[in-house]
Amino acid sequence: MKARVTITLKPGVLDPQGKAIEHALDNLGFSGVEAARAGKVIELDLADGTSDADIDAMCRKLLANTVIENYRIERL
Amino acid sequence: MKARVTITLKPGVLDPQGKAIEHALDNLGFSGVEAARAGKVIELDLADGTSDADIDAMCRKLLANTVIENYRIERL
Repeated sequence: MKARVTITLKPGVLDPQGKAIEHALDNLGFSGVEAARAGKVIELDLADGTSDADIDAMCRKLLANTVIENYRIERL
Repeated sequence: MKARVTITLKPGVLDPQGKAIEHALDNLGFSGVEAARAGKVIELDLADGTSDADIDAMCRKLLANTVIENYRIERL
């Protein structure tokens, strides 16, 4: 079983990596970029029968910093 | 208009960050994790009318290293 966890910064949290991407795209001539936000994606191969609660616990305990990040879990 | 670019390492490329996640989850007692791969996600706010070809060019020129990474573009 596969799951994908997408981790993004909460709105309002400063994102220097996103800002750098925004400016770099502008410098390369892509003028239509209004904002960029950077995040992480983690693809997990899990034993069959791993529950949603287990995946949620993985996110809260290790994968995401819930003070500044949101996470979204998708089963694939 | 919003677009999400997901960047993942190509199969076969070593992923030390993914390995570290795998071992850390195991150490935390999540025994069902068979593999973990780490990647990036970039959310872009784009001017209306930005073409798919433009977004593809952004990926090839800046966002992804196409030697070792795959990218996937989704319009939101």
